[in-house]
Amino acid sequence: MDKREQFISKAKEHVREELTRKDLLLIQAIRSLDDIDKAKALLFERLTEWSKLNFPELEIQNEELYLKFLEIAGSKEKISKERISELLGADRTEKIISFSNGSMGAPFDDEDSKIISIYAKRLLELFLLRKEITSYIEKEGNKAFRNLAYLTDAVVAARLVSTAGSLQNLAKMPASTLQVIGAEKALFKHLRMGTKPPKHGVIFQSPLISTAPLKQRGKVARALATKLAIAAKADYYSHHFIAEKLKEGMEKRLKEIREG
Amino acid sequence: MDKREQFISKAKEHVREELTRKDLLLIQAIRSLDDIDKAKALLFERLTEWSKLNFPELEIQNEELYLKFLEIAGSKEKISKERISELLGADRTEKIISFSNGSMGAPFDDEDSKIISIYAKRLLELFLLRKEITSYIEKEGNKAFRNLAYLTDAVVAARLVSTAGSLQNLAKMPASTLQVIGAEKALFKHLRMGTKPPKHGVIFQSPLISTAPLKQRGKVARALATKLAIAAKADYYSHHFIAEKLKEGMEKRLKEIREG
Repeated sequence: MDKREQFISKAKEHVREELTRKDLLLIQAIRSLDDIDKAKALLFERLTEWSKLNFPELEIQNEELYLKFLEIAGSKEKISKERISELLGADRTEKIISFSNGSMGAPFDDEDSKIISIYAKRLLELFLLRKEITSYIEKEGNKAFRNLAYLTDAVVAARLVSTAGSLQNLAKMPASTLQVIGAEKALFKHLRMGTKPPKHGVIFQSPLISTAPLKQRGKVARALATKLAIAAKADYYSHHFIAEKLKEGMEKRLKEIREG
Repeated sequence: MDKREQFISKAKEHVREELTRKDLLLIQAIRSLDDIDKAKALLFERLTEWSKLNFPELEIQNEELYLKFLEIAGSKEKISKERISELLGADRTEKIISFSNGSMGAPFDDEDSKIISIYAKRLLELFLLRKEITSYIEKEGNKAFRNLAYLTDAVVAARLVSTAGSLQNLAKMPASTLQVIGAEKALFKHLRMGTKPPKHGVIFQSPLISTAPLKQRGKVARALATKLAIAAKADYYSHHFIAEKLKEGMEKRLKEIREG
């Protein structure tokens, strides 16, 4: 190998090492959740509008149940009492059937029902994909960011890393920054217009904060961020598992906050 | 039934009649194609970015083939020579395998490959849905807008109706409007800034125009729009099939245009 080849091979190796970072994969996974949510919302809205031409009276709040109903029935003309009862229970099915009899919607023929049913089926596949990617994040995130994940959960940990851009960036952040990343809009509004500063960004998705009483949330967020900042450093630099100890310390602090 | 009930029942009937119009269904179908395209682009871009961490050298121009490759392999570590050869042929597979050996990409483990493969599979379902809805439009459009569809094709016909808002709107349009709907941006730029007026809007998607020499396109578009305006009226008002005669007339005009 001459010098030039050596340099190229060295460069390739660097690129490979750089790409091997697990945080890059998990960042892609987290961002794909957001993309899937956007795609789902777009396609769901269209399907609803289309199907409402046939059965505007139908109301099923849960999106997945609604899609499963459409997958099975396709239209109000094709409601199978037996199969819908399995999905929604006998009482609710009775109600839906009675709505369908007095419906103002247009009748759908076989082709119309079939395409609605196919559409719903394909859209349910996207719901499934979201779950599959979430469990990938849980599995891999608990390995790659185990300290962060132990203090919150793998999805919140991956979202923190994704918002910071990389695990390295996150590890370099002081707790006060980590506390508000993902709330940039509110932060800049605060800096520009003197509104209240944000209490939390991405970490709000941690149940610890979202279930805390409104008045204590700022303090809880700060306590969590302090420990997460240390956890990020451990995940990036030492790879030691120190989260149990961090959690103990955090819980002591949380108790103090709760007791005022 | 008292008067009030009679009125309500009458109103319900009106709503039902209004919703029964087949053009409403086909408009939803056409718009869902656009939504699916948006969703596909979003999800495809994300998957590409994710998978390129592993195999940046892979280039397969055709999106469906690319997805099928990812569905089968998931990563460069899992390329099955046999199954990829079936997809891409032996020569191309050899090349890809040799690229994969010198790749700068990060290695993917089993979990990483599996999630990419699932993602590709689910995305292929959206490609399938697009095809299924297209054949629904072809089937139903050829019934609902048979004159329009005969002159162009069912998808272009449905797109014209969707852009006009309804078959009724389209039927009321003069040929000159029909010619440019879907090119509103260019039309208003023309009106505002005196740029050249658009030669065609949605109807450009008709192969008749898109394959015509650039210089003749305006004239071809006008000839087609003239006949389509009549076809729309027939589809909406009389339901008679007159498109054969219209096509004859149009072809005579096209011959004149071609011969200058």
